[in-house]
Amino acid sequence: MLGTSTLTRAHAEAFDAEDDLAFLREAFVLPEGVVYLDGNSLGALPRRTAERLREVTEREWGRDLIRSWNANGWIDLPGQVAGLLAPLIGASADEVAVADSTSVNAFKLLAGGLRLRPGRRVIVSEEANFPTDLYVAQGLASLLGDVELRLVPRHGLHAALGDDVAVLLLTHVDFRTGEIHDMAGLTRAAHDAGALALWDLAHSAGAVPVNLDGCEADLAVGCGYKYLNGGPGAPAFAFVARQWHSTFESPLSGWMGHADPFAFGPRYQPAPGVARLLCGTPPVLSLAALECGVETIARAGIDGLRRKSVALTDLFVRLVEQECGGLGFTLASPREAERRGSQVSLRHPDGHAIVQALVARGVVGDFRTPDILRFGFAPAYVRFADAWDAVAALRTVMENREWQRPEFRHQATVT
Amino acid sequence: MLGTSTLTRAHAEAFDAEDDLAFLREAFVLPEGVVYLDGNSLGALPRRTAERLREVTEREWGRDLIRSWNANGWIDLPGQVAGLLAPLIGASADEVAVADSTSVNAFKLLAGGLRLRPGRRVIVSEEANFPTDLYVAQGLASLLGDVELRLVPRHGLHAALGDDVAVLLLTHVDFRTGEIHDMAGLTRAAHDAGALALWDLAHSAGAVPVNLDGCEADLAVGCGYKYLNGGPGAPAFAFVARQWHSTFESPLSGWMGHADPFAFGPRYQPAPGVARLLCGTPPVLSLAALECGVETIARAGIDGLRRKSVALTDLFVRLVEQECGGLGFTLASPREAERRGSQVSLRHPDGHAIVQALVARGVVGDFRTPDILRFGFAPAYVRFADAWDAVAALRTVMENREWQRPEFRHQATVT
Repeated sequence: MLGTSTLTRAHAEAFDAEDDLAFLREAFVLPEGVVYLDGNSLGALPRRTAERLREVTEREWGRDLIRSWNANGWIDLPGQVAGLLAPLIGASADEVAVADSTSVNAFKLLAGGLRLRPGRRVIVSEEANFPTDLYVAQGLASLLGDVELRLVPRHGLHAALGDDVAVLLLTHVDFRTGEIHDMAGLTRAAHDAGALALWDLAHSAGAVPVNLDGCEADLAVGCGYKYLNGGPGAPAFAFVARQWHSTFESPLSGWMGHADPFAFGPRYQPAPGVARLLCGTPPVLSLAALECGVETIARAGIDGLRRKSVALTDLFVRLVEQECGGLGFTLASPREAERRGSQVSLRHPDGHAIVQALVARGVVGDFRTPDILRFGFAPAYVRFADAWDAVAALRTVMENREWQRPEFRHQATVT
Repeated sequence: MLGTSTLTRAHAEAFDAEDDLAFLREAFVLPEGVVYLDGNSLGALPRRTAERLREVTEREWGRDLIRSWNANGWIDLPGQVAGLLAPLIGASADEVAVADSTSVNAFKLLAGGLRLRPGRRVIVSEEANFPTDLYVAQGLASLLGDVELRLVPRHGLHAALGDDVAVLLLTHVDFRTGEIHDMAGLTRAAHDAGALALWDLAHSAGAVPVNLDGCEADLAVGCGYKYLNGGPGAPAFAFVARQWHSTFESPLSGWMGHADPFAFGPRYQPAPGVARLLCGTPPVLSLAALECGVETIARAGIDGLRRKSVALTDLFVRLVEQECGGLGFTLASPREAERRGSQVSLRHPDGHAIVQALVARGVVGDFRTPDILRFGFAPAYVRFADAWDAVAALRTVMENREWQRPEFRHQATVT
């Protein structure tokens, strides 16, 4: 798609004109005048969602009240969303549960994974893993008393897989750099060491093809509010490979994971399969919103989304090189598209202020400590012209030294 | 209010005319022709909620996108809802966290409570406690290996409090019968035995005054979707008394409970106070809905709500005695109002079919195995005339033997 000649906005516009997925942007509500490159943190609002939330609130809750659990299928929502989501991550519908948050699901799967590997008391992960995965592992280790969390640098993962390891816990796409782990190879290495592999798909699901079953992954969790567009704090998901269904025990054995919750018996009996990963009452409003988000992405198909994502991030990288050379940026993401998720990260010592100055110009990316500027390219709604406009704004911010203005100070953001 | 003469619908109408809280029904959307006596299972839709969900979806998420975490205060929502809720349960705002589900919160507090009582490995609860509390305790016991869940009948609680007990886990208002536990007395008994008291307020919060601080309760959880009207599967809450704030450790140490989540450091450091009970990213849509529900209830004040609730359930009990004597019902709830929550439960061997027949007549209560017909009187929107109409329908269903029709078969319902 890209040659070596100088790129202009007209090139980007031509790519948009040829884009098979251009139609999909119409399925989202996006504000005028904003280049939104933060769909890896909070996905945009699908047009259908607002209408569906009105329906589930005003008609189902307001009018049908308690009867909606059956009459409007509320009780089936978790399974329904899991069914839509499974093909995006290379899983069967009966291997996926939609419930709780990524953090809570990580706890379930880590604790359950340890129990599937009796005698082994080590969890291996990366120092640079997304913090909540590490925090949850620390909380579990502290609760159990005899579990070690072994944190190593990326290149030390293979060496860390000793015969005391129960679970290898990794995030597929690095939240800072966007670098993709070799899921098949690392899962194999974990298995060779007698351990299970638990993958966090927060920055993969809906943008990067994942083949959980093909890689023989054991366990996975992921996030509903990034590329799946489920809304702020959307329910998360958990995957347990079929081979573990009969033996997996969730430590969070709430009533909705019971084989017969409405028998109200005093003894917990896990539901067959992944339904045992449900815990409390399903959050219907959030699930309805997540369903709209996943549906919208599923319509495009994950392979088409990935093709466009690669083209977008390639263009952005080339444009940064062309327009912003000598302005102090280095590329934090892999240069080769196949090793990169759906984001491009740059490093700059003044990254935080630069991101704020870009936001003031309507280009919304985010900053991750200590020096990372993240630009997410959600292929469902980001245009090639957006990549051009973002880089043009970045150049202007730098050339005018806009980022040095005092107002571009601290601001908390959420992944 | 009630004398001994025969009651008629005119009496009920007169009570409605005198009702100080009658105005509050207008704050809810309720379907025409339905007598809704299941607010103890799913609270009705506050009128304000539909509007607020449109705003948070279309304006905040759709237009302001990621910036809403700060610009629209999403990050403060859990604390804000906790602040509205705290006075309803006799707690300070800084003792309450709004997050996750009741089941997940019960796990946090049980695990954290055990750690506050080292050397003690027994959880005492009631056989008749709401199952999810028991299931969660069983899951924790199974995970930890050396914890015993000691289940006893209601009258055996005091005797079960030996010096090996770490936590007494009880539901304040029994989900089947509506009977209220003596929170002050049982908390004192737990303390006398060296244990902590953990109260499930699912059937109390928003309808029955609770004085957690006054009773010196240690821990509590509760539900957002019953009398708090937060919507199906609304976020739940957790209470930790201030004296435990510095030592309480949540086993679910997710990033939103970190002292500085946006530093993205590799080591978990708990936030001060109850903020450490947060785990994953807050569910913004559900929290916005819950906020509307709690606000609506808080406006009335818990004492006024209780006064009306007692008057409603008293009237219902008297009407059942007057209209349905000899039809095979026995009262499962305490006859004395002060020992009864905001529901009246009847027993009948054909309870399930009778409840279905009532629903077909537009009188919505629910059934709990084996023989309990539950009628919840959410004082915020149930009218005295509803109590009359419900009993009149019950009498008709019995006299016409409508419940014997074949269509009134199995139906699952959700507490």
